[in-house]
Amino acid sequence: MNFLSDTTAPAHSALIDAIAAANAGYAPSYGADPVSARVKARLSEIFETDLEIMFTVSGTAANALALSALCPSDAMIVCHDEAHIHRDERGAPEFFTGGAKLLPLKGAQGKIPLDAFQAALNEWPSDFVHATPPAVLSLSQLNESGCAYTLDEVRALCETAKGAGLNVHMDGARFANALAHLDCAPADLTWRAGVDALCLGATKNGALAAETVILFPSVADRLPALLARQKRAGHMAPKMRFVAAQAEAWLEDGRWLDLARHANAMAAKLSDGLAALDGTELVSPVHGNEVFVRLSPELAGALKAAGAGFYDWPDGSARFVTSWCTTDDEVEAALDAARG
Amino acid sequence: MNFLSDTTAPAHSALIDAIAAANAGYAPSYGADPVSARVKARLSEIFETDLEIMFTVSGTAANALALSALCPSDAMIVCHDEAHIHRDERGAPEFFTGGAKLLPLKGAQGKIPLDAFQAALNEWPSDFVHATPPAVLSLSQLNESGCAYTLDEVRALCETAKGAGLNVHMDGARFANALAHLDCAPADLTWRAGVDALCLGATKNGALAAETVILFPSVADRLPALLARQKRAGHMAPKMRFVAAQAEAWLEDGRWLDLARHANAMAAKLSDGLAALDGTELVSPVHGNEVFVRLSPELAGALKAAGAGFYDWPDGSARFVTSWCTTDDEVEAALDAARG
Amino acid sequence: MNFLSDTTAPAHSALIDAIAAANAGYAPSYGADPVSARVKARLSEIFETDLEIMFTVSGTAANALALSALCPSDAMIVCHDEAHIHRDERGAPEFFTGGAKLLPLKGAQGKIPLDAFQAALNEWPSDFVHATPPAVLSLSQLNESGCAYTLDEVRALCETAKGAGLNVHMDGARFANALAHLDCAPADLTWRAGVDALCLGATKNGALAAETVILFPSVADRLPALLARQKRAGHMAPKMRFVAAQAEAWLEDGRWLDLARHANAMAAKLSDGLAALDGTELVSPVHGNEVFVRLSPELAGALKAAGAGFYDWPDGSARFVTSWCTTDDEVEAALDAARG
Amino acid sequence: MNFLSDTTAPAHSALIDAIAAANAGYAPSYGADPVSARVKARLSEIFETDLEIMFTVSGTAANALALSALCPSDAMIVCHDEAHIHRDERGAPEFFTGGAKLLPLKGAQGKIPLDAFQAALNEWPSDFVHATPPAVLSLSQLNESGCAYTLDEVRALCETAKGAGLNVHMDGARFANALAHLDCAPADLTWRAGVDALCLGATKNGALAAETVILFPSVADRLPALLARQKRAGHMAPKMRFVAAQAEAWLEDGRWLDLARHANAMAAKLSDGLAALDGTELVSPVHGNEVFVRLSPELAGALKAAGAGFYDWPDGSARFVTSWCTTDDEVEAALDAARG
Repeated sequence: MNFLSDTTAPAHSALIDAIAAANAGYAPSYGADPVSARVKARLSEIFETDLEIMFTVSGTAANALALSALCPSDAMIVCHDEAHIHRDERGAPEFFTGGAKLLPLKGAQGKIPLDAFQAALNEWPSDFVHATPPAVLSLSQLNESGCAYTLDEVRALCETAKGAGLNVHMDGARFANALAHLDCAPADLTWRAGVDALCLGATKNGALAAETVILFPSVADRLPALLARQKRAGHMAPKMRFVAAQAEAWLEDGRWLDLARHANAMAAKLSDGLAALDGTELVSPVHGNEVFVRLSPELAGALKAAGAGFYDWPDGSARFVTSWCTTDDEVEAALDAARG
Repeated sequence: MNFLSDTTAPAHSALIDAIAAANAGYAPSYGADPVSARVKARLSEIFETDLEIMFTVSGTAANALALSALCPSDAMIVCHDEAHIHRDERGAPEFFTGGAKLLPLKGAQGKIPLDAFQAALNEWPSDFVHATPPAVLSLSQLNESGCAYTLDEVRALCETAKGAGLNVHMDGARFANALAHLDCAPADLTWRAGVDALCLGATKNGALAAETVILFPSVADRLPALLARQKRAGHMAPKMRFVAAQAEAWLEDGRWLDLARHANAMAAKLSDGLAALDGTELVSPVHGNEVFVRLSPELAGALKAAGAGFYDWPDGSARFVTSWCTTDDEVEAALDAARG
Repeated sequence: MNFLSDTTAPAHSALIDAIAAANAGYAPSYGADPVSARVKARLSEIFETDLEIMFTVSGTAANALALSALCPSDAMIVCHDEAHIHRDERGAPEFFTGGAKLLPLKGAQGKIPLDAFQAALNEWPSDFVHATPPAVLSLSQLNESGCAYTLDEVRALCETAKGAGLNVHMDGARFANALAHLDCAPADLTWRAGVDALCLGATKNGALAAETVILFPSVADRLPALLARQKRAGHMAPKMRFVAAQAEAWLEDGRWLDLARHANAMAAKLSDGLAALDGTELVSPVHGNEVFVRLSPELAGALKAAGAGFYDWPDGSARFVTSWCTTDDEVEAALDAARG
Repeated sequence: MNFLSDTTAPAHSALIDAIAAANAGYAPSYGADPVSARVKARLSEIFETDLEIMFTVSGTAANALALSALCPSDAMIVCHDEAHIHRDERGAPEFFTGGAKLLPLKGAQGKIPLDAFQAALNEWPSDFVHATPPAVLSLSQLNESGCAYTLDEVRALCETAKGAGLNVHMDGARFANALAHLDCAPADLTWRAGVDALCLGATKNGALAAETVILFPSVADRLPALLARQKRAGHMAPKMRFVAAQAEAWLEDGRWLDLARHANAMAAKLSDGLAALDGTELVSPVHGNEVFVRLSPELAGALKAAGAGFYDWPDGSARFVTSWCTTDDEVEAALDAARG
């Protein structure tokens, strides 16, 4: 009954196997290997467009590198007040950009409200030398409240961003979970809506360590600068084939979405069960693999006593995270403990 | 006959197995897993002292993070003119330190001469507000000419560094190769000689991606700052157990030194064979797994025609790198082609 | 009738004279001149304590340098949402600190509410490696709404800051105006209340370009690091005597407070006059030389037509700034135009 | 007999007068004043081309800001090993560029030899992601050995730089002295030869604090970025008219060149006199206002005993600097002491 984080889960065995398979003989290093090339081609099919890619071994690195390729040192990234890039990355965006500013906006369900975004753009002009101009809008999909922006929401925010000359970055550490929930084309949720760069996370969904920064055509010309930054930041791993192999196996035959659907289903089952109990309240709708729920002290105590792992969240709720390997039995056991 | 780089080699199967074995159930993330703790304990035994460790997936990251924990933004790192940190890391030390300066010194066999180091210390005072003061001495062991500093050389350089208030960093991307050559205690080659921080590389010697920054007791109190920098730089991989598992298997039963001894032996055989031919000249003595040799154009052409992979080096020589998996047959085939 | 900004005002003639007087013969450069030493001694008397000083030619530089000496690169500065360091310095604190984060808090009258500050400290822990820890509290005195924190407010905020291990920075671009309003001892408003570093501005109050960073005893040991940063940032002007001479003349015989009292009096007269009119409303109480007032479009138009210079503020109000050289006639003329 | 540095000299009285004259009434701040506009127009005439300008109060700031507008964070600035930007600015270029690297080249008379520059370009490729690519060539004119590059030398270096895609920066802290020596058109020595940005120093030649960064047409489009950096670095002084007024008076009626010619003549007289003595040797030819000369210990002692101020230089020589206000009597007195 471990619902602490999807980062505590093991990797899917198919990815371990893929690593072993990639371990045959010599291969060009630093990303010039054939597996990396195949992943790029596969992602191009999945997203229905030409694109450029770059691997990292953490979502923090993926986000910070992507943001640094989109945002000048003396400009600003608009994000949600709960965004991982603001709260949980120890200032990585500030470090990688050379001192850019984050402008956190509040909004329900972890979403940046369109009017708050527009107000921020009005408040921070683009051409006043004394003030830091907004240059990037960063959206988390799935976001930090476990919610997915709808297609219309993404489109509207991107349109406003583009109208003001901003690029759009999407933190997709749990992109597969959001996509599984929305059940739409990956292209619709990203570049067709106006997203310039996507950080596509696999680590929380079956990989050992494999995050992919995707540059869509609007910013694909920034690849050389991005690779220079990757090298300079120590993220150009010498034997990149082992990261690429994970990505390839993860994408194979829709595995990434199957794993996400499973995690989402487990979260739905858990949240449905908890929500049906007296004295509980869901903080946000459950769109992916995260459940934020207020529990009575008794209920929380009973769960912990039964060995259920979850985090007390700063807002007073409890956070449960399911993963690709959460079992029906684990969820049942947790619900039994809660009901008991 | 691939002698291009030890980064093009596969990983040792024991490390792949270790990854698979580590993939059992849930484990704490971000380095709090039990495998990481075991590696720290094992390294403490090997180096005969308490120490602190931090993992990365590239030598560039290990070096830059370690240096940034030792060198203020407005100070200077003294290194060899051919040092990897100066030539091959795209300014990573400058980036991670926030703009520190590298002072490259020339010297034969890739070694910083003691008198050149002393002269540099005289030239760059520590207390003149207009000038950048030296704060760190960085030594590569094995160095970029494929040579190992002797114990006495390391001791003398460290003593001079300490006398001037500098910390000492050792880039040990090929530390195992140097240690195998010198056949001394790891402690003697590092902290007992005055080294404060060692970047212990496994990636070039059998790992997929596993570099360990070791802080010896003199600087162990910098661990919290180092971890903060690791996180901020996106190098605190969520599922760290998979890096730790590689390190554990690599150190197991002396495997790290066995692999290095093999690579060294292959390089010795190759260099002996090449040096015996007419029109060849070794640029530096061969202490580890790198051979720098001047070849006649005919000989170089014959080798390439036979399919031997090696790099033309900027100084006009040819660089051959052997690895843990270079076979006797490969070396024989190369020598046959050269002799033919 | 120029109420645009106190930076558009000329310098007081006594400071011009002091520059001319300092222009006699050779003098040591980079701050080693005797005038600089005299200013330090004089400030020590005025603030009733030992202290260290450093000059700059802009408030942005003074703030950013002081903050960078107090806040590590991976930590956070808590400030008001309207703070000059957040809104009007193009990310200078981020640049000088190497990527620290600003945490802006909202509050009436330009003041950080104690409870909001405490809540921020609770929200951002000091020891969680993933989150950016607060390291500095920055207070503007006079603040960006033209209001002065009371002695009790300063003390309470500093006490809370110190309790959480934070240093306290005071942006005193208009410190003289605040001091004149509060009519208390400079020591009481600063180090005795818990302020560690004060940026004492003269440029807006009679100088050509003379800002002084004062390090009180609690952080005086950071002077060498601060001077290194000053040099590195190009703010160690070679002929520093000309900055020091301004500071000396400004402090002479209480001139700094006399000039501030005059500016404050002019602002009081202007705000009293405007507030008495129909259709006007003061946004904040007037404690210094800034007046924020809502005007009807007609009234604003009449003032502009009469040649009164003032800024339309983002919140919809009008900002009038008086200075040491604002005349009674100018204020009368503006009020006449408004009444007309 | 003060030959310590031209930064210890006072300012020319005409510049003090200009400051007093500029102190009339209100003026737009941050560089929007009419004096600044006039200086730009005057420099455009002097340099026979359109250009953009920006003021700072130190040469370090001028150099670092200009370099940061020309050199990306992950690129490299080629300079002489004795360059002020490398030796005497506490890493300011590294700080302002966000971690760019300086590549110092050795050469006689403080000059970068063309072949050494070409070799450096060969050694550091522009398109290898692991290595830091050269982006800027920085020339000091007058250089740190007191010598001026000839027109042909400047042209050849610039041509090579341009051929490799580099921009050219000229550190002109003593540009007037070099120009007075070479007696050529300012345009010929700068943009017509291939210089993109000039830091034109007045502080060492009669000003209180007035350095002008000039962007020639080839890089004039970088002005907005440069101004943003100026603001962000705290170098956009609020009352910029007082810096501009100095520049205007300095340029008026050829005063800048008159003052430089006087300083040069004093240096020539001093060096001629010293060189004629037994046991002395000029280290470099004297092209401007700096004299580097080897003195016997007796002679050095006699000069110091007589009250002559000069610096013992790291290379064992003595450095004498004359300035716009060095008198014939001072030089005579020094020579008398040396002869005595």
